[in-house]
Amino acid sequence: NYFNIASIPGDGIGPEVMNEGYKVLKAMENLHGGLSFKIEEFDWNCTRYIKTGTMMPDNGLDILKDYDSILFGAVGAPEVPDHISVWQLILPIRRAFQQYVNLRPIKLLKGIESPLRNKTEKDIDFIVIRENTEGEYSNSGGKLHENTPHETVIQNSVFTRFGTERIVKYAFQYAKQKGKSKLSVATKSNAMNYSMPFWDDIVREISRDYPNIPFHLYHIDALAAFFVLKPEEFEVVVGSNLFGDILTDLGAAVAGGIGIAPSGNINPEGDYPSMFEPIHGSAPDITGKGIANPIAQIWSVGLMLEHLGYSDLASVIMAAIEKAIEKGEALTPDLGGNGTTDAFGDAIVSEILKGV
Amino acid sequence: NYFNIASIPGDGIGPEVMNEGYKVLKAMENLHGGLSFKIEEFDWNCTRYIKTGTMMPDNGLDILKDYDSILFGAVGAPEVPDHISVWQLILPIRRAFQQYVNLRPIKLLKGIESPLRNKTEKDIDFIVIRENTEGEYSNSGGKLHENTPHETVIQNSVFTRFGTERIVKYAFQYAKQKGKSKLSVATKSNAMNYSMPFWDDIVREISRDYPNIPFHLYHIDALAAFFVLKPEEFEVVVGSNLFGDILTDLGAAVAGGIGIAPSGNINPEGDYPSMFEPIHGSAPDITGKGIANPIAQIWSVGLMLEHLGYSDLASVIMAAIEKAIEKGEALTPDLGGNGTTDAFGDAIVSEILKGV
Ligand SMILES: CC(C)[C@H](C(=O)O)[C@@H](O)C(=O)O
Ligand SMILES: CC(C)[C@H](C(=O)O)[C@@H](O)C(=O)O
Repeated sequence: NYFNIASIPGDGIGPEVMNEGYKVLKAMENLHGGLSFKIEEFDWNCTRYIKTGTMMPDNGLDILKDYDSILFGAVGAPEVPDHISVWQLILPIRRAFQQYVNLRPIKLLKGIESPLRNKTEKDIDFIVIRENTEGEYSNSGGKLHENTPHETVIQNSVFTRFGTERIVKYAFQYAKQKGKSKLSVATKSNAMNYSMPFWDDIVREISRDYPNIPFHLYHIDALAAFFVLKPEEFEVVVGSNLFGDILTDLGAAVAGGIGIAPSGNINPEGDYPSMFEPIHGSAPDITGKGIANPIAQIWSVGLMLEHLGYSDLASVIMAAIEKAIEKGEALTPDLGGNGTTDAFGDAIVSEILKGV
Repeated sequence: NYFNIASIPGDGIGPEVMNEGYKVLKAMENLHGGLSFKIEEFDWNCTRYIKTGTMMPDNGLDILKDYDSILFGAVGAPEVPDHISVWQLILPIRRAFQQYVNLRPIKLLKGIESPLRNKTEKDIDFIVIRENTEGEYSNSGGKLHENTPHETVIQNSVFTRFGTERIVKYAFQYAKQKGKSKLSVATKSNAMNYSMPFWDDIVREISRDYPNIPFHLYHIDALAAFFVLKPEEFEVVVGSNLFGDILTDLGAAVAGGIGIAPSGNINPEGDYPSMFEPIHGSAPDITGKGIANPIAQIWSVGLMLEHLGYSDLASVIMAAIEKAIEKGEALTPDLGGNGTTDAFGDAIVSEILKGV
């Protein structure tokens, strides 16, 4: 059981938290005889862009495609316009490898306080399934009458039946397999009058194959409000690329902070590698201070292990994270402590090694 | 000082809360000698659509255009697809009358508890300025390969220099006039790579005329998270049509409920009437029970009075609302009481008449 992992630590706090991810993978090898990870690191980031003009080599996708999985840190630097850093690295990977499912658990961990009054771990525990290859992020659009008072820019949101069906099916299937009681669907069919009525129709069509999973359509504005007012309503939420993006940052906030939330960019068919990354960005403001919270990165490693078939090890990681929070010995500043990234990572690893 | 007001109560709880708006206008006449309102009501709603096939008459916009202001309740019914109810009534009005500013105060009223732990009136008090005529809600798009596996739908977000400049200018100007210290701007230029870099560029250009109003760009996902994590950061927020929509429902939730938040669809040049409406919808689930919270509608009347030049009266209304909440005698169920729409409206009116 040998896995080749490509690692792209990225910029800012990316490499800092990635280190803690590595420690956890080492611990897994110790815990589980016969399991081994070979990690190859790629310096594809904004520093590279500034030096060479590209975020990754021309054959970057070709290089990545044979790995078993990709671990990603965070990307972005103040000197590089972020539509460049993003469209030359993370989004091409998601798209080329048909990682059309972005899985984002929203879960209040034991020991973390939600900013929401009166909400506990029982109330905030669901998953958002985000479409990850098309929709609002289709890299499609244009500009006319440039630099005149009549300048007009068009951004196209492109929804295909193929792309919409597969994500909606995945969501219903996920709900069914995990024994969930319903599916919540983000829409905005009242105002976005081409894309979203189409999206809703496909939801209705697919739903016929899942008679035991009732679904409910929510306009994205109301849904955002409900994440704050009644998070306990939700079990599985599915949304388009943009809506899923907004909902998961919001969900992360509600679940106690953006330093915690992980994500998996999944290629369900397994014909290309999947990629695992924190939801948070490169956080230039705290870079180099050694105080970034490593939980999101470590949890992402957990999602990777689950994807590779080791749910038991993923559970060990989650239990260790919660235990380390509970002990509270090296909590990073965002969690109210004064620990370092390194020390908090060690604390989690030591819980892992205890076998928890 | 005589004003002709067109009223469109709409569907569901719309007419129920609109009644309370009328009471407040009557009270204003009593309070302020010489002020008078002539209200003309239009039954443009989903019931009309079901009967006649249209939400408003063909010359509806022509009828409305000579009024001094429009009061709107809420629109939408389960039997009518909401892209119809919306695109045949509210959106054409906003667009035809160049109500390009949607003003949405996010303010935690005294006596209302925020769902956010530890946040008080001092922390939640800002305004969102939403573009209201173009962008993501441009009614532009199309469909190809219909009913085949290759079906593809495109929704165009159209951003013009004209439309973007005027809203951004309004936002800077608003911040300056109200003595605010900064402007927060919603963007998503990392992923929506045509529209949003253009939007950001225009923000940078206009900002040169406002050297004392620093601005800060936030990606919409992060901004949504910050509404929950640090609402006290914000004074004036400007966003596109969709982003402003999402942020204001979220903001309303954070400020204690969607039954409270008002909005003004403003035509700043005054060449057409402006329109004032609650943020909330028609709420079919509580329609007919007489328990809808009338605050959003009454506050919208306040915004209308401010727009018509009576800021002092708008303040009287706000003070009366807060006083009535404080006394807590007829609070509606959403605020934890068991009062009716009618009784709570009366409670507010009685505070108004005391001159507060
Ligand atoms: C009814 C709907 C189209 C509308 C919008 O999205 O603009 C509503 O949500 C609002 O915020 O006024
Ligand atoms: C970096 C950015 C393009 C990205 C996104 O919006 O998808 C990020 O916000 C995320 O959620 O993974």
